[in-house]
Amino acid sequence: MAVENSVQVSVLGLGAMGSALAAALIEAGYPTTVWNRSPGKADGLVALGGKAAATAGDAVRDSQVVIACLLDDASVHEVLDPLAGDLAGRALINVTTTTPAQSRQSAVWAADAGIAYLDGGIMAVPHMIGRPESSILYSGSAEVFHEHRALLDLWGTSTYFGEDAGLASLYDLALLSGMYVMFAGFLHGAAMVAPAGITATEFGKAAAPWLTAMTGGFEGYAAVIDGGDYTVEGQQSLEFSDLTHIVAASADQGISTEVIGMVQQLIQRQIDAGHGKEGFARIIESIKQPA
Amino acid sequence: MAVENSVQVSVLGLGAMGSALAAALIEAGYPTTVWNRSPGKADGLVALGGKAAATAGDAVRDSQVVIACLLDDASVHEVLDPLAGDLAGRALINVTTTTPAQSRQSAVWAADAGIAYLDGGIMAVPHMIGRPESSILYSGSAEVFHEHRALLDLWGTSTYFGEDAGLASLYDLALLSGMYVMFAGFLHGAAMVAPAGITATEFGKAAAPWLTAMTGGFEGYAAVIDGGDYTVEGQQSLEFSDLTHIVAASADQGISTEVIGMVQQLIQRQIDAGHGKEGFARIIESIKQPA
Repeated sequence: MAVENSVQVSVLGLGAMGSALAAALIEAGYPTTVWNRSPGKADGLVALGGKAAATAGDAVRDSQVVIACLLDDASVHEVLDPLAGDLAGRALINVTTTTPAQSRQSAVWAADAGIAYLDGGIMAVPHMIGRPESSILYSGSAEVFHEHRALLDLWGTSTYFGEDAGLASLYDLALLSGMYVMFAGFLHGAAMVAPAGITATEFGKAAAPWLTAMTGGFEGYAAVIDGGDYTVEGQQSLEFSDLTHIVAASADQGISTEVIGMVQQLIQRQIDAGHGKEGFARIIESIKQPA
Repeated sequence: MAVENSVQVSVLGLGAMGSALAAALIEAGYPTTVWNRSPGKADGLVALGGKAAATAGDAVRDSQVVIACLLDDASVHEVLDPLAGDLAGRALINVTTTTPAQSRQSAVWAADAGIAYLDGGIMAVPHMIGRPESSILYSGSAEVFHEHRALLDLWGTSTYFGEDAGLASLYDLALLSGMYVMFAGFLHGAAMVAPAGITATEFGKAAAPWLTAMTGGFEGYAAVIDGGDYTVEGQQSLEFSDLTHIVAASADQGISTEVIGMVQQLIQRQIDAGHGKEGFARIIESIKQPA
């Protein structure tokens, strides 16, 4: 459903994600200029109604709102540092994946150049863009977030964390950590059962609903952690959570024990420190204090 | 809804799980004898209509079907080895958490003693017993599984994997691996955001639906693994999955990098071996071949 939108938007970086963001803008009727370092990536977006810029500078000068969706923080500064003068007075929304420290440095750089800076972290894969289950986290300029909220909401569910530009990246990377670690756990399980002739597909059909059900445990662990008392009744103790038998079974299957061994180390450090009778949630203390 | 059931059942081990299993049997009308090494645990079950046995031997001799839900494999053999003669000709259903190798050894021991042996792995916490989302995995004697299926189904959804008594334990431990590793990933994320004043509860509210959504990725990874070709189009490459920035951001937050670093090591070994352009699912090869 195309509507007329008067804000001109430029999208820098047309990888799979940048292209999905630009396509959503074009389809919603935003006049959209696109640019990519290597040519050819803009063709599909031009066919949709976008305008291709020959240079990043041309793209920046076209629009009041500039979206950066580049490879990494180094690419952002390589492309944008020479254009600081052109960006002055415009809004820069940087959804490139960066660390919190990099996001904060970009915010300082932008403030020095008179650029209104909003940092974003996209919790979605490109084909999810435009659907409500696509979650996009923002922090930095509240003014940019609120003024362009309608545009941002085109991409998914927008959440604003505050003026500290590093918060969205921090939350983004914390959620991504959970995802990558979960994937490693799934693949460890698939590797364990493989020698018994069980396919990864068959194991995945059991693992997906099982792990989904087990996310129900987060709330209880979180309550214990936030309460600050790991001796609260009704918890599974660290001693009971000892994973020696799973480590042994993994070794018996001839596979690496480093995935499950990592969890066992977190547990063991707390047991060794005399906390074996306390709850499993206490392993967060092993993470909070590097060994 | 109590019905009359004629099979006499004995439950050895009345921890939280054993008690839940026994309570479900009693409530369904099975004449049930219970025993626990330390006394007092049987009182609640006796009040429900169960019968307390003074010794494990008395409990075994009472029933055609004996359920063992003890602390570990050592406890199983400590309690049951002296009773092998009494168990001969009866069905032993061992739902104690053990390794696949231990389950297979118990099956050999049982066969030598003329005991029909079924091994079980319970994928549930005690309060879930009796609900369909409580999944209980079995392997070993098909005869015991089929003859007592009605009884087993009282506890949850029963799945039979085959005559190899180690299969249920293997599957059980593989799923538990996925769970413990996922919990570590969640707690890593919670530890990352904690210095920014974000509570574990707040983080958990975002992490639970996020990780649930991401279990949707298992199917695709599994298809690639089962297909045996990590170069199939449309995958996120290992190079793109490089987690150096998440490791750095974790260190910046002052927390341990061992949780996310474990995943990065799996990725790095595949990149170092020249597979950086191939898909993320290939990290299962890092797990299958210990470093």
